[in-house]
Amino acid sequence: MGGARKLTVDLGERSYPIYIGEGLLDEAGVRLAEHGISKKSPLLIVTDNRVAERHLGRLEALLRESGFTVASAVIPSGEASKSLSRLEELVGAALERGLDRKSAVVALGGGVVGDLAGFVAASYMRGIKFVQIPTTILAHDSSVGGKVAVNHPLAKNIIGAFHQPELVLYDLDTLQTLPEREVKAGLSEVVKHGLIWDAEFVAWCDANAEKLLALDPEALGYALYKGCSVKAAVVSKDERENDLRAILNLGHTIGHALEAVAGYGELLHGEAIAIGMVGAARLAVRLGAPEDVYRVTKRVLARVGLPVRLPSHLDTDAIMSAMMHDKKFQEGAITFIVPVAVGKVEINKSVSTALIREIVEELKQEAVEA
Amino acid sequence: MGGARKLTVDLGERSYPIYIGEGLLDEAGVRLAEHGISKKSPLLIVTDNRVAERHLGRLEALLRESGFTVASAVIPSGEASKSLSRLEELVGAALERGLDRKSAVVALGGGVVGDLAGFVAASYMRGIKFVQIPTTILAHDSSVGGKVAVNHPLAKNIIGAFHQPELVLYDLDTLQTLPEREVKAGLSEVVKHGLIWDAEFVAWCDANAEKLLALDPEALGYALYKGCSVKAAVVSKDERENDLRAILNLGHTIGHALEAVAGYGELLHGEAIAIGMVGAARLAVRLGAPEDVYRVTKRVLARVGLPVRLPSHLDTDAIMSAMMHDKKFQEGAITFIVPVAVGKVEINKSVSTALIREIVEELKQEAVEA
Ligand SMILES: NC(=O)c1ccc[n+]([C@@H]2O[C@H](COP(=O)([O-])OP(=O)(O)OC[C@H]3O[C@@H](n4cnc5c(N)ncnc54)[C@H](O)[C@@H]3O)[C@@H](O)[C@H]2O)c1
Ligand SMILES: NC(=O)c1ccc[n+]([C@@H]2O[C@H](COP(=O)([O-])OP(=O)(O)OC[C@H]3O[C@@H](n4cnc5c(N)ncnc54)[C@H](O)[C@@H]3O)[C@@H](O)[C@H]2O)c1
Ligand SMILES: [Zn+2]
Ligand SMILES: [Zn+2]
Repeated sequence: MGGARKLTVDLGERSYPIYIGEGLLDEAGVRLAEHGISKKSPLLIVTDNRVAERHLGRLEALLRESGFTVASAVIPSGEASKSLSRLEELVGAALERGLDRKSAVVALGGGVVGDLAGFVAASYMRGIKFVQIPTTILAHDSSVGGKVAVNHPLAKNIIGAFHQPELVLYDLDTLQTLPEREVKAGLSEVVKHGLIWDAEFVAWCDANAEKLLALDPEALGYALYKGCSVKAAVVSKDERENDLRAILNLGHTIGHALEAVAGYGELLHGEAIAIGMVGAARLAVRLGAPEDVYRVTKRVLARVGLPVRLPSHLDTDAIMSAMMHDKKFQEGAITFIVPVAVGKVEINKSVSTALIREIVEELKQEAVEA
Repeated sequence: MGGARKLTVDLGERSYPIYIGEGLLDEAGVRLAEHGISKKSPLLIVTDNRVAERHLGRLEALLRESGFTVASAVIPSGEASKSLSRLEELVGAALERGLDRKSAVVALGGGVVGDLAGFVAASYMRGIKFVQIPTTILAHDSSVGGKVAVNHPLAKNIIGAFHQPELVLYDLDTLQTLPEREVKAGLSEVVKHGLIWDAEFVAWCDANAEKLLALDPEALGYALYKGCSVKAAVVSKDERENDLRAILNLGHTIGHALEAVAGYGELLHGEAIAIGMVGAARLAVRLGAPEDVYRVTKRVLARVGLPVRLPSHLDTDAIMSAMMHDKKFQEGAITFIVPVAVGKVEINKSVSTALIREIVEELKQEAVEA
């Protein structure tokens, strides 16, 4: 496996390691055992149909070879699987396969699988162990912080828990099968972690964009390591999401509104927040940040293949009203994360809606370089 | 309100008070505010249709008078309401009424309402505040320990969390409307708390059985206070249910099997575990405990109107197999809680199934005094 990177998410008693490298699946048995996953109690691997096709058989075989009792449950790929009815189905599978208090749930997949399987682990018998094996770039984000959840017909991620994994195994080989559009969308959150915390890393992303898009293992491993490190630094300081953790929402105020208005499918989450980050950078400059913030943000996102212009057919009123709706959940004020420099943001709780509307309009005119 | 009793469940940061007395509903507004429940964010009261009829209007009015924004959701009375679909419905209600991270869920009702509403509070936005206003005697048990859950078609209480309330308000007046059979069933767990921990309290229950059955406020208040105290002492030492907490299962190994075999309705939970406790006492004597243990256990349970004989139409094989099924969840061994004296039990992990079968047969012959 060469040089696997290891990172510790520092949460006191609930601290856990993230391993990032090539060939890590081959060592899954050893790593799980090392981190206290029991061979006496059955494991449940949760994955989706696309990931199952490519990687499930191998993981099952490797874990069985290592002496684990392994059951698997395959859900349909896509956000719609993050539902209470899938939760009920997976708990049924866990019961039928005899999972007990010492069992673990292993999530093999992207953020959808991770969030759903994580909530199964959090709630089955009021909490059993959880292991993440992320197979998307975007899932570097969900592999840190312990947020697990399912959706309600009226709101995303509204039913959930904080449940930290025992360990995270990020095998870069599994990422090789990821569709190109998902690669780019995942890089959006990687870049975000640079923009909120680490100017040098932003410059590195800019310089290494081609390697990242080509899934070069050394570049990819480094980028995921840095992305996870920034998120880990933020959540270690603020596990329960009070203040600091809000900075992780850079680009998300506009981004979520775009996802809601465009409807699932047109814009991936990473694409929507790329546009949102350009918007936040524009806002920043209006509020007095150096021009640089806008130029660099837009450039690095474009370099990794992300959209920076807001699709002009999306209705501005609808976008504004989606933002107002989100607001409801935060007692009256829209919280906007605004850069003050590249690699540094602040929380602004009093941005006027008129100004945001102007930014949305400008984003529809955003020039796109050849 | 005269002499309200106060008890603190000692769980470090998550410690909380239980108030027990008459007229406590009148002070609900003051108490909630005192314990950090916000008036700026809406509350959701969850209750069932029977309790709603008798007590909801008053609680709503009193909380509104105190300046709270109050919404209510009424579920159908009965165990079937502890389901994921009710959870989804209640989360929908919470969203529609604008509950945010600073809101609280208030459970007004018995254990069913408490468990379901508690899991809503545990999972809505990954956890908001929770207040319990228990209206059954049995709910003294669920008001200590923080266990909240819903059922799965294949198993009871299998999807849940540990989520401690901010406070518990036990208004003895609300208990006056409780049906007699529910009163007796609730006293079963009260007696259980004596049998596992406090011989003097067992003697007190024996001497005060009539007062308890008549819902005499002074006697009832004391009994609930003692019951909660014993449970609090046990869970404070073992919040996450590893070892000591198992002693709370006195009577439950046989009791659960009886509930499963009899089907819902024939035996209430408290009735089933009363028979189970007589069984455990018989077992104890077989294993060398003084005869006394059996005599006192049976006598006090009969005094508070509980069944002590196992209905002979329930099939012994079916009961045994239900017990074996439960076993699956504990890695191979049936755990039996066995008295060693009145007020003292031990955990026995190696009781032979042959011996248990004999006890079950004996329980069918149990003499019932006039
Ligand atoms: N918990 C958190 O902190 C957190 C953070 C960010 C996002 N999320 C959640 O994550 C989800 C999005 O994550 P995602 O983008 O990974 O979504 P995803 O799990 O749906 O994966 C995206 C697509 O890629 C496919 N796929 C995954 N791995 C593959 C592989 N190796 N090869 C081929 N195809 C593969 C999937 O089947 C799916 O079609 C959202 O539900 C979001 O709410 C959670
Ligand atoms: N969380 C825990 O630690 C814990 C412990 C013990 C039991 N439980 C759970 O508690 C439940 C049983 O509790 P329960 O016996 O209170 O059940 P319950 O809530 O169903 O109440 C019993 C009946 O009494 C009615 N009722 C309640 N209060 C009333 C009042 N004041 N006046 C008139 N009618 C009233 C209810 O509508 C119901 O029909 C089970 O689901 C069990 O799993 C949980
Ligand atoms: Zn995001
Ligand atoms: Zn019980």
